[in-house]
Amino acid sequence: MKEYYAERVGTMAGGELGDLMRLVGRDDIISFAGGIPSPDIFPLEELKEIIRELLADEPRQVFQYSSTEGRIDLKDYIVEFLSRRGVKTSREELIITSGSQQALDLIAKVLVDPGDPVLVEKPGYVGGIGALKCYQARVTGIDMEEDGISIDCLEETVKKIVSEGRPVKYIYLVPDYSNPSGARLSAEKRRKILDLAGKYNFYILEDTPYSELNYYEERLDFIKEYDQENRVILLGSFSKFFVPGLRVAWVCAPRPFIDLLSRAKQDADLASSTIGQLVITRAGEKGLVETQARRVQPFYRERLEAMGTALDKYFPAETSWFTPRGGFFFWVKLPAGLNSKELLAKTIAEEKVAFVPGTAFFADPQDGYSYLRLSFSDIKPAMIEEGIKRLGQAIAGYPG
Amino acid sequence: MKEYYAERVGTMAGGELGDLMRLVGRDDIISFAGGIPSPDIFPLEELKEIIRELLADEPRQVFQYSSTEGRIDLKDYIVEFLSRRGVKTSREELIITSGSQQALDLIAKVLVDPGDPVLVEKPGYVGGIGALKCYQARVTGIDMEEDGISIDCLEETVKKIVSEGRPVKYIYLVPDYSNPSGARLSAEKRRKILDLAGKYNFYILEDTPYSELNYYEERLDFIKEYDQENRVILLGSFSKFFVPGLRVAWVCAPRPFIDLLSRAKQDADLASSTIGQLVITRAGEKGLVETQARRVQPFYRERLEAMGTALDKYFPAETSWFTPRGGFFFWVKLPAGLNSKELLAKTIAEEKVAFVPGTAFFADPQDGYSYLRLSFSDIKPAMIEEGIKRLGQAIAGYPG
Repeated sequence: MKEYYAERVGTMAGGELGDLMRLVGRDDIISFAGGIPSPDIFPLEELKEIIRELLADEPRQVFQYSSTEGRIDLKDYIVEFLSRRGVKTSREELIITSGSQQALDLIAKVLVDPGDPVLVEKPGYVGGIGALKCYQARVTGIDMEEDGISIDCLEETVKKIVSEGRPVKYIYLVPDYSNPSGARLSAEKRRKILDLAGKYNFYILEDTPYSELNYYEERLDFIKEYDQENRVILLGSFSKFFVPGLRVAWVCAPRPFIDLLSRAKQDADLASSTIGQLVITRAGEKGLVETQARRVQPFYRERLEAMGTALDKYFPAETSWFTPRGGFFFWVKLPAGLNSKELLAKTIAEEKVAFVPGTAFFADPQDGYSYLRLSFSDIKPAMIEEGIKRLGQAIAGYPG
Repeated sequence: MKEYYAERVGTMAGGELGDLMRLVGRDDIISFAGGIPSPDIFPLEELKEIIRELLADEPRQVFQYSSTEGRIDLKDYIVEFLSRRGVKTSREELIITSGSQQALDLIAKVLVDPGDPVLVEKPGYVGGIGALKCYQARVTGIDMEEDGISIDCLEETVKKIVSEGRPVKYIYLVPDYSNPSGARLSAEKRRKILDLAGKYNFYILEDTPYSELNYYEERLDFIKEYDQENRVILLGSFSKFFVPGLRVAWVCAPRPFIDLLSRAKQDADLASSTIGQLVITRAGEKGLVETQARRVQPFYRERLEAMGTALDKYFPAETSWFTPRGGFFFWVKLPAGLNSKELLAKTIAEEKVAFVPGTAFFADPQDGYSYLRLSFSDIKPAMIEEGIKRLGQAIAGYPG
């Protein structure tokens, strides 16, 4: 059948992340690979109560199809959620998606022809790069700094691409505590990127999965808040700060674009899970979503600090890393000469510790061999220390 | 932003079905448009009990991500489900999808380059055609007969396309009680299509959403059962005969192809809703899925017969239709000169009755103006009679 595969299969991601996710479930492995939220902080009792209510009040709805664009009451709640965060919108400017990964897919589907230039963070979210590669975008990374992407690199790259005759369609950004870098885009740079988008006529895909996961500082305004020219497509998800298994996320954009996403979604999965939408709606209406957004902060902050302390204590002096102020990840640079993929094979076999090699986070995997991503979100602090200790020893003893 | 839309937007479906779905919810309209299962027959009490058990036994799982390919215990149940239906498979040859619409999307994504020939039933499922158009397939319809697609038309069409230098990649078939035609593919034709697939080197996408909804006759073997050359990709869904809102479907195919779908799914939505998978698994293990497969038969049969009787009584002699022996749909041919889209505008405004114009079910909408699809699945028999009466009057009085 191979000769019948579509051309895009050649550029699709290799499923490495899927392989790593399977390690998460193995009891004998300490895995820093996952990047998934911790069930230890899920509001289980409140969620059980909500589901009991739903089953009593509207059981027929719970199991029936919902509409392609998503339930109106959920959209109305998201309008309210966003208004508390400075973004005025309406239900017409929203579509519900099956996780924000679906939003990334649908947006690429309606905007990207093969060869179209799209920019991403370098390093940037593997699923964002993956969605683009599926549609054969020409993906170019923009260097990350401690306060988000380099504006100079952005402008130079855009100029160069435009001079070659093809417009940049959009830039994919995770402004708050990005995956994997952990960097937060400064307020100043948010404005500058919007200016550049106007100047060079490109769009901004602003993805905000970690925006509620700020453990030390006030949140910054979404770029969307300053968007006068409809340049910003805003994405949000309940997966990381609330619960992920219900697969509920949303896109906020001008109506004509939502219409287009809706048509694409109809062909992609017809409609999202109804029960997930109903649960999030009730949780929102009851104030549980906002309560949970506050509850998770000290919880994950403790784990972040456990990892920071352990890295200081156990990692060799030749390694370096960025200490994030939110999100789920530390991004580590290995000593010169170490290859993170080889290291992973060794640490899984010998130390029973897993992480994600940096290669996954670059449009060109070659750029990532000397990096690794460590997630602290779903490991108890004592295990974080133990895992980092083993990993530090493996790095120090490499190739040993 | 329009100048940035991908080329495929030009071939994407117009979202007509979405518009029609919205009519379903309006209390003042009798809608034969939906084609959705009836909550009147959902096993609500048993489902409530299953969810109560899940929340008590494994609440942390319920809200966490599941793996991209889907839960292993659900795959194991589907292996068992399929073995009772004559198909021997294993969990390695299965992937769980977010409804079978997602399967149609992912399969097109990994097999279709722009311009690739793919065959569909004529008329055929709107979502199947839509998924293909999104990937700019060259979609060609094969004439439907009362016992499924015309084998002569299939062979002629394949020969013609192949002679033009490009292989047919696959044919999309709904062998049991297809949407919208209601036709069931005969056992003889199932064998012949498989032979032709071998002879002309194309694949068969066998979609079985209505295969449990056989109200008068024993089910026929899946084409997959005779598949010696791995030509058949088998799709199934719990949406139509069990409940749709949980969005659980599956694909059964050789492992290398499942691997490819898994990579595509990772970029499409990361993972399906966990709670949906858990509920179907328990329902399967408890025997509820099989019980329900039997329970729905007399229930929908009554509605089918109510529609058949009403059509005989109220539809003008110049109309004709096919009476199905399963599934959800009657497919009606209007008297010469009537346009189903114009008729719909009139019946919604004047008679408060909705249906789907035939145009949605053809690769070239022009072919469908004189047809309409009537669904009997989600309307009580008395309302079926009332709605068909009004529709019959509108047709008789047209343009009136």
